[in-house]
Amino acid sequence: MTTGGPPTVETIAERAGVSIASVSRVLNGHGARPDTVRRVERAATELGYVPNAVARSLKGGRSLQLTFAMQDIGNPVYVSMVRQIQAITKAHGYRLLLHSTDAVVEDELAVVRSLADRTSDGLVLCPIRITPEHLEALRGAAQPVVVIGSLPDDAEPPVDSVRADSVTGAELAVRHLIRTGRRRIAFVNGPADTVPGRNRYRGYRAALADCGLASDPALVTNTDFTIEAGTEALHRLLDEDRAGSGSGPGRLDAVFCANDQLALGAAHALHARGLRIPADVAVAGMDDTSLTRASWPPLTSVDLGSAERGRIAAEMLLDRITERDGTSRAPARTETVTPRLVVRASSAPAETANAAQDAQDAHPPNTAHTAAENGQEVTR
Amino acid sequence: MTTGGPPTVETIAERAGVSIASVSRVLNGHGARPDTVRRVERAATELGYVPNAVARSLKGGRSLQLTFAMQDIGNPVYVSMVRQIQAITKAHGYRLLLHSTDAVVEDELAVVRSLADRTSDGLVLCPIRITPEHLEALRGAAQPVVVIGSLPDDAEPPVDSVRADSVTGAELAVRHLIRTGRRRIAFVNGPADTVPGRNRYRGYRAALADCGLASDPALVTNTDFTIEAGTEALHRLLDEDRAGSGSGPGRLDAVFCANDQLALGAAHALHARGLRIPADVAVAGMDDTSLTRASWPPLTSVDLGSAERGRIAAEMLLDRITERDGTSRAPARTETVTPRLVVRASSAPAETANAAQDAQDAHPPNTAHTAAENGQEVTR
Repeated sequence: MTTGGPPTVETIAERAGVSIASVSRVLNGHGARPDTVRRVERAATELGYVPNAVARSLKGGRSLQLTFAMQDIGNPVYVSMVRQIQAITKAHGYRLLLHSTDAVVEDELAVVRSLADRTSDGLVLCPIRITPEHLEALRGAAQPVVVIGSLPDDAEPPVDSVRADSVTGAELAVRHLIRTGRRRIAFVNGPADTVPGRNRYRGYRAALADCGLASDPALVTNTDFTIEAGTEALHRLLDEDRAGSGSGPGRLDAVFCANDQLALGAAHALHARGLRIPADVAVAGMDDTSLTRASWPPLTSVDLGSAERGRIAAEMLLDRITERDGTSRAPARTETVTPRLVVRASSAPAETANAAQDAQDAHPPNTAHTAAENGQEVTR
Repeated sequence: MTTGGPPTVETIAERAGVSIASVSRVLNGHGARPDTVRRVERAATELGYVPNAVARSLKGGRSLQLTFAMQDIGNPVYVSMVRQIQAITKAHGYRLLLHSTDAVVEDELAVVRSLADRTSDGLVLCPIRITPEHLEALRGAAQPVVVIGSLPDDAEPPVDSVRADSVTGAELAVRHLIRTGRRRIAFVNGPADTVPGRNRYRGYRAALADCGLASDPALVTNTDFTIEAGTEALHRLLDEDRAGSGSGPGRLDAVFCANDQLALGAAHALHARGLRIPADVAVAGMDDTSLTRASWPPLTSVDLGSAERGRIAAEMLLDRITERDGTSRAPARTETVTPRLVVRASSAPAETANAAQDAQDAHPPNTAHTAAENGQEVTR
């Protein structure tokens, strides 16, 4: 398009319509407004500017790459995190390395340690659990790391982190079910020996206790975080519930599930038995993934802020990378994202639901009613 | 764990229980059996071996990174591709760079051109469409590229590629619906002006013609590839179908959708109107994503081999990278993955479905019947 030698910061600045300083900032990966980054990148591409990453890395000590390490890219919770992280890092001129740890702890530790090879300028890590080895590796990390998850509260945190508040999240969902008239609320939880499992159970029990309802151990079960496990678990609960219903307080009228996969599976069990959702049994999940819209009826769920956590983690990481150029170093930060209940048709009050069911040939909207209730502020 | 200076290939080989040659191969990114790679990596990590990526890159001319560029990481079709590509590249000692193009063609071209900066040793690209600029960029690519998609058949292909056969895939689904007794089969397609849109429509019409059924334009509609669009489209088709049913051949009894999102949306429209799936209307989708298990009833779908395409693309790319070390260069290859129909409850024959519906309190399995029919060999 232009002639006369390779492009320079001057020719790129002219074509992009920005200052030479802006071009320099973008090309050196120091970030700029997304719009500026986009214009500079486009102009640079059109002019055939090809930086040599290796030379650049040696010169500036930067790879212009960041890493996101998670357990499994197939989990929709990670998908919304990746989307956010990718959008932000890209706008700042970074490439994003993706690493699936396949739930192997040693693999997580290897990713942290490999920061020493300078392939990546920083890491966002979603660990399965935090072991003493994790803390040691994080303390010795050669580049900035941000953890999405809960670092232990009792020690000085080794790095920045952002966490969900699943205790409050579970409370929100169960309170909502009670408020809409449900009294026998089953809980299909994930594995009991994990932090998410313990926290969600705490929230479930707290909401019941607050509302003066007894917690019935027969209504609580633990299983894997999958659709199939949710279906099996609910069939089991319904079988046992029916067996004892002669003298008992009646069939369960709601089921709260520790994630959306389990809730979707529970809904399948209800469909298979001809039980109506929500007229006979209300259903609520957690994580507010894309599965809530895949479910019929659309699924009430607690948004634990996976996209928000991704956004905050990416910004924390970019802050640390910028900070490296300066002289001072801020102490490690811990942020908690407030959960939010998103009410959809699967948990409409039983009376409303019956009315809607009678009129179901009348072309009701896909989502009977969608509302969002703000989570409480975290008080712990 | 051990003392006496930094680890060497000898100490790593001893710890991993493999040959020194194997350690050298793995550490230099030349690949080895996955088990060997894993053992060497673990031993290297445990011994604190940290290669300097920049030095390694300058020395060997390798970044030990590969790039996967796709439109949107949130699309479940890409999720299964990423999983496969990640697993294979990781087993061969490569990191995977992830790039979302957000459906911006210029961004796709920039990824191809940026191979010249040697940040990546190769690229797997899923383009939205192939323009003349794409072909030019691919011909001039500085590192090996494999395209997942259809390169033009009329020219010498610039790079290796692997494609789906969606014409045959659509035929498989529609033939299955006809064979199970359906006669008025609607088609909810994606945008008409895309390669997937045109191919799926060709398959739909071919299957109807083969079985001696007329293609009714009133039963075909084009829309976006989303759940919500599928719901709206089916409501519209049912409204129009009902309006004309006084003198017409009766209500539609099946709907074939050009992807799983559309099929899930169509199912929601049927649920909202109180029409039973599959007793009143059978539903089938395409891509065989995780949404098929999220749907109630579980969704019949055509597996176009997205995981398989990811696997083949990764292997083609690794072959090209290995080849670079040699002297000869094989001509560009084009592979086509054979589609496969996966039958689930959403398309059971109407009679079977009625019987199942009568007995629905009897704890039926989540998936009424799951079977796979092999796709025809591609004959084009």
